[in-house]
Amino acid sequence: MSADWTDALATALGAPVQTDADILASFARDQAPLAPAGTPIALVRARSIDDVVTTLRFANERRIPVVTRAAGTGLAGGANAVDGCIVLLVSGLDRIVGIDEATRTAVVEPGVLNGVLAKEVAARGLNYAPDPASRDISTIGGNIATNAGGACCLKYGVTGDHVAALKLVLADGTVLRTGGLTKKNVAGLDLTRLVVGSEGTLGVIVEATVRLLPAPRPPSTLVAFFETLDDAARAIVTMNAGADLSLLEVMDQVTVSAVDEMTRMDLDTSAAALVLVQSDARDASATIARCEEVCHRHAAKSVLCTDDVEEGRLLLGARRMALPALERKGTTLLDDVAVPTPAIPEMLDRIRRTGERHGLVIGTFGHAGDGNLHPTIVFDRADAASASSAFEAFDEIVRDAMRLGGTISGEHGIGSLKQAYLGPMVGEAERALMARIKAAFDPNGILNPGKAL
Amino acid sequence: MSADWTDALATALGAPVQTDADILASFARDQAPLAPAGTPIALVRARSIDDVVTTLRFANERRIPVVTRAAGTGLAGGANAVDGCIVLLVSGLDRIVGIDEATRTAVVEPGVLNGVLAKEVAARGLNYAPDPASRDISTIGGNIATNAGGACCLKYGVTGDHVAALKLVLADGTVLRTGGLTKKNVAGLDLTRLVVGSEGTLGVIVEATVRLLPAPRPPSTLVAFFETLDDAARAIVTMNAGADLSLLEVMDQVTVSAVDEMTRMDLDTSAAALVLVQSDARDASATIARCEEVCHRHAAKSVLCTDDVEEGRLLLGARRMALPALERKGTTLLDDVAVPTPAIPEMLDRIRRTGERHGLVIGTFGHAGDGNLHPTIVFDRADAASASSAFEAFDEIVRDAMRLGGTISGEHGIGSLKQAYLGPMVGEAERALMARIKAAFDPNGILNPGKAL
Repeated sequence: MSADWTDALATALGAPVQTDADILASFARDQAPLAPAGTPIALVRARSIDDVVTTLRFANERRIPVVTRAAGTGLAGGANAVDGCIVLLVSGLDRIVGIDEATRTAVVEPGVLNGVLAKEVAARGLNYAPDPASRDISTIGGNIATNAGGACCLKYGVTGDHVAALKLVLADGTVLRTGGLTKKNVAGLDLTRLVVGSEGTLGVIVEATVRLLPAPRPPSTLVAFFETLDDAARAIVTMNAGADLSLLEVMDQVTVSAVDEMTRMDLDTSAAALVLVQSDARDASATIARCEEVCHRHAAKSVLCTDDVEEGRLLLGARRMALPALERKGTTLLDDVAVPTPAIPEMLDRIRRTGERHGLVIGTFGHAGDGNLHPTIVFDRADAASASSAFEAFDEIVRDAMRLGGTISGEHGIGSLKQAYLGPMVGEAERALMARIKAAFDPNGILNPGKAL
Repeated sequence: MSADWTDALATALGAPVQTDADILASFARDQAPLAPAGTPIALVRARSIDDVVTTLRFANERRIPVVTRAAGTGLAGGANAVDGCIVLLVSGLDRIVGIDEATRTAVVEPGVLNGVLAKEVAARGLNYAPDPASRDISTIGGNIATNAGGACCLKYGVTGDHVAALKLVLADGTVLRTGGLTKKNVAGLDLTRLVVGSEGTLGVIVEATVRLLPAPRPPSTLVAFFETLDDAARAIVTMNAGADLSLLEVMDQVTVSAVDEMTRMDLDTSAAALVLVQSDARDASATIARCEEVCHRHAAKSVLCTDDVEEGRLLLGARRMALPALERKGTTLLDDVAVPTPAIPEMLDRIRRTGERHGLVIGTFGHAGDGNLHPTIVFDRADAASASSAFEAFDEIVRDAMRLGGTISGEHGIGSLKQAYLGPMVGEAERALMARIKAAFDPNGILNPGKAL
């Protein structure tokens, strides 16, 4: 599988272009096993912004699709290859260009791992807030391209809230700088925010200026187990409405059991739900004590509170293991929906009923404080009936989220996985407008075709 | 001044269309007296979304420009008429459709005054944070169209940070709904944020869903006077870096004197600068006490602190009077720049030197915590030399802000006033891209031509 243009591209770049089918196959997918993916023709490992410019200019002239990727940790197929494309790998652009304590900003290349940046700025008493669960293995470029979420969003907002400026290469090779250092800036249209979350369809991010916060105060932590999912959900809504929380997560019984089986943490696997809460407010301890009361009022089976940071970190470990633990149970179809917080009890109940109706195991966990849930359908891929039920359940869950005033994706994105739902979600007129905006950036449609919009 | 189409428009609307030249003249400008403005042909007072749709569809078919406005309190000519246009007045769409305490959102029509909404939600123990100085007379629609700032932005962000969803009419009459209720939402491109700050060039906002916060805690307040502007600026940078402040404002000697002359507040008019600070943190009183120390360390002449909310409100009155007080001194050319906070001392010094060089009175005040300054040039409009110096000084200030890594507009916008600076600020490639995005929304270019981008 090669093409007549790969030599010419290598010449233009002054470096070899990877065309080995096995190697290409390993760069054809992100971590959404069931999202559609095509077969690439070439892999370019960008060593510089010039390489990105050269590749895009080359591809644009020849109408060759380009799929940009870095770590490939996405969960919606946003970085999945399309047939005949160039995979443009930007992981190698991994310099932290600078950290400026005076303006509380950092300038980074797209391949910098979130966790590496977080550690560097923490060493200076600062905080890069966005904390997708993948932060140790996912890059800032990918985080921005997907407007990645995480647990911190409850208090600190999504990735886009922390992006001040971008250096972007357009499809025709033009290099743009969007945004600026000041928080207030109304010079023209907000292109920075438009590029955030656009999944590589508008341009290739080659540098980002991100905002840093002062280091957070040490958090206090609460873990509560509930007899019923509904009790847990109602406690979540109440705690969320009143308190200054920095984290509010939920795991249902299926997830807790899977985690306990894997980690032997001795969790209460008879409980219907586990709720995790943190506060890094100045009065964190008192805030968590008020949450403890709320949990007891909602018939919690047991509640544990701690001001010990290390103990809190260990308790959060259970939540971090949710997806790996469920993945051991079978093929998983991970969903990502968000509903307005008052609708959380109803959404959790509908997910439970969907599982029952289809006789499927669904483990639900997520960032409950933001109404952002990850129902994870476990099924047997070899069994056609099971697979078909799984996709039906997935479909029902996404549509239920829409019916409850929520969204088809809270933080993973549309990618190639949720194309079918974007029209119903935003309406065809808005979708057509998005396509016209895309054309304003990329008239030949070479950048990550068929994704995001 | 009429046109052959005004009767047809009235028929389409089923209502009279205003064509009286005197009345039209009173709707041809916002509050930026020196920003270019043209002569409208007709005024439509929209009574419903249908009126907006009808007007746009009519205008789009005939390529008639449409300038949307509400209260007309803008400060950059963003709502100024262009020759031959329809002025589309949406002030009459002024219903608060609903306030939902459970999701902490309000749905409002564009003509609702910011202050009216703020009062309504405060009565429910909630807070609509965006607080442009004009809040009692400016509308939510205009605030969103300009991404209005204010003093609260330091802690709570700009208007765009509080907009969850929009109902928007495109140039061809298509009605779109962008955004949603969930904070996490990555379904396609972020059109909501793109429309915020676009000054009516992309569509007409006919409904907005805004986010509400819990009512803030009562603030503690500090007022400090400084011998030199530089001492004040350095104190500002230090206070801003460390503390949880909800307001950090500055006024220079010219402004303080003008305010004192007007209000007889008995301010220290010999001081080079007045700095106002508030904190609504849980430990507001201690936070303000730490700021007091900082002020003393930076050689403050006098510092007054209070936990009394009413006293704090009175002290803030001085800042609110800054622009009206300067406007009594002559014709004013109000600027709006923002620089990264470490550059505040240098920017203030450059503004002072610009005034000296041109022999002009420049009163500078602003939202210092965000680096957002309003140097206000006072001159004699009847004196051609004075006017010419004023515009030269204005130009130098805007270019100095760019040189210091700042922006040509922090919160007032580009409008018709700052068109000349947008190219130098964002670069011609980005400006061309903005024009293509504009065309994706409005292919015939009828919506507020020549503004924002």
